[in-house]
Amino acid sequence: MSNQWIAGVDLGGTTTKIAFISMDGDILHKWEIPTDHSNEGQYITSNIATSIMEKLEELGQSKTVLAGVGMGAPGPIDYETGVILNAVNLGWSDNFPLRDSLESVLSLPAAVENDANCAALGEMWQGAGNGAKNLVCVTLGTGVGGGVIANGNIVTGVNGAAGEIGHITTLPVGGAPCNCGKTGCLETIASATGIVRLAVEEMNKPNSKGELTNIFNRNKKITAKDVIDSARKGDPIAVKVLNEVAFHLGLALANIANTLNPEKIVLGGGVSKAGKILLDSVQDYFDKFAFPPVKNSTKLALATLGNDAGVLGAAWLIKNKFIG
Amino acid sequence: MSNQWIAGVDLGGTTTKIAFISMDGDILHKWEIPTDHSNEGQYITSNIATSIMEKLEELGQSKTVLAGVGMGAPGPIDYETGVILNAVNLGWSDNFPLRDSLESVLSLPAAVENDANCAALGEMWQGAGNGAKNLVCVTLGTGVGGGVIANGNIVTGVNGAAGEIGHITTLPVGGAPCNCGKTGCLETIASATGIVRLAVEEMNKPNSKGELTNIFNRNKKITAKDVIDSARKGDPIAVKVLNEVAFHLGLALANIANTLNPEKIVLGGGVSKAGKILLDSVQDYFDKFAFPPVKNSTKLALATLGNDAGVLGAAWLIKNKFIG
Repeated sequence: MSNQWIAGVDLGGTTTKIAFISMDGDILHKWEIPTDHSNEGQYITSNIATSIMEKLEELGQSKTVLAGVGMGAPGPIDYETGVILNAVNLGWSDNFPLRDSLESVLSLPAAVENDANCAALGEMWQGAGNGAKNLVCVTLGTGVGGGVIANGNIVTGVNGAAGEIGHITTLPVGGAPCNCGKTGCLETIASATGIVRLAVEEMNKPNSKGELTNIFNRNKKITAKDVIDSARKGDPIAVKVLNEVAFHLGLALANIANTLNPEKIVLGGGVSKAGKILLDSVQDYFDKFAFPPVKNSTKLALATLGNDAGVLGAAWLIKNKFIG
Repeated sequence: MSNQWIAGVDLGGTTTKIAFISMDGDILHKWEIPTDHSNEGQYITSNIATSIMEKLEELGQSKTVLAGVGMGAPGPIDYETGVILNAVNLGWSDNFPLRDSLESVLSLPAAVENDANCAALGEMWQGAGNGAKNLVCVTLGTGVGGGVIANGNIVTGVNGAAGEIGHITTLPVGGAPCNCGKTGCLETIASATGIVRLAVEEMNKPNSKGELTNIFNRNKKITAKDVIDSARKGDPIAVKVLNEVAFHLGLALANIANTLNPEKIVLGGGVSKAGKILLDSVQDYFDKFAFPPVKNSTKLALATLGNDAGVLGAAWLIKNKFIG
């Protein structure tokens, strides 16, 4: 058993990351496939199964090398039943039986959990949170997700919807619409999508100028990375947008910390690659909005596993469930 | 042992509630004493000890009937060391060794915990949360406190400051100063003190009139109860103030629920005696700000133990620590 591998899958709205991982948490092989969420998401699990089988063949391995497949998916999940309650970005109807679908296409034991919970478990198992019994992980990607570990266990909540940090309302009046149906969610501001939206709004104002505006005029679009890169170079619009992102992130994280006083809050996902320029500013707002004893004890940190946190946490689900 | 009693103490800024409680959670005797926090709080624990000894004598009991004394106190507490890290309303200096002080004046085993955590434990043991493994209790009193139970255990946080729900920032710009040194804390709005402040601000505007204004003019002051009673009778200023309270409470509770998706959020403390007029309005704002799957699964409820939650939870500390 200890020589077996686990397949860890991190399902994203655009890309699906897959890895074969050892029982000790070493990533042996990893690759990505595009996420095809057309036709109500009916190809998602079969595409993953096909890709895993092809990779095994490429490596000269049979399926028996795999102890199981763990998957993180974006949305609230009932861990016990393996049902994804809703998945606004993936096309599935509500209450899609994701674990059963995965077990059926692969004929392997499967476990599914919210993707941000997987990232938290990955960071707890192999990353920045190593050893912390009270840990919150926030994933800043296309959307914003979160995972909460209290007293050493993931908090799933009564309906699997704990850790929906992206849907914390930080702009209660006049906020932008969110995919979830609310307005003013943290995700509308601090996700890659939110950053681009804010920057485009700023550049649509009269007399917009500067590096970011030049990129926008040249490419007819910008990315969150463009905003971050331009902010590093002092572009005023980009700096203003990142400041707004940091304000809302700092407020949300401080309020989470006022509630849970975790040892660490770990920031991961693509947007967190902004690194120090974002973290320092988030820390300033966090310090402003956190209860003083919380400010002095809860630390903010960047994720150390980068994009690997999700597949590692997904693999941990199988290790924890079937192997221990 | 099972015939012994536990002394449960609920230390408030104005009044200290004390009760003798059976191992099964029945309140056998309860009474109150004023909290004398003069001279840096040096009389607080000795006054409690004197009162407990007098009550035992009155009942013809010796001190051996008591298995121990549990206390809830307002402020962040390190449960392991029994130290209260700071207590802005009680006069103690930072890091006051509360458990040691209590053990020394009574020569009994003692345990101390944040008062709102005690209320949560009380509601979990004997009240509205009975059986819920994921529970948040919010105490709306002179201040606003909170207790968080996740996966069946109280979340204390890395520095004992979990559950500081009163210091969640719900008004990040332009909020009123809080005793903690920040501005815009929930406590500045949804506590009895906050309600009075908001009402007085409204009544200081030109052409203020109505029942609440009449009470204010007559008594030269108002209480939170006056505001609630006047709101029930439709007084526009009181209705406006309670609506603002409900907005901020609904926002904070929804964001807590977006993070933890607890089975129940229980509202207790004096302000919660407003009952339906407050709860219905808080529920409306909660529904507006909660992620839909959270809105559909996390329930708001009024505490059922009333003022007894604190002493019961304090007693539970001793039962759990020494008896099990």
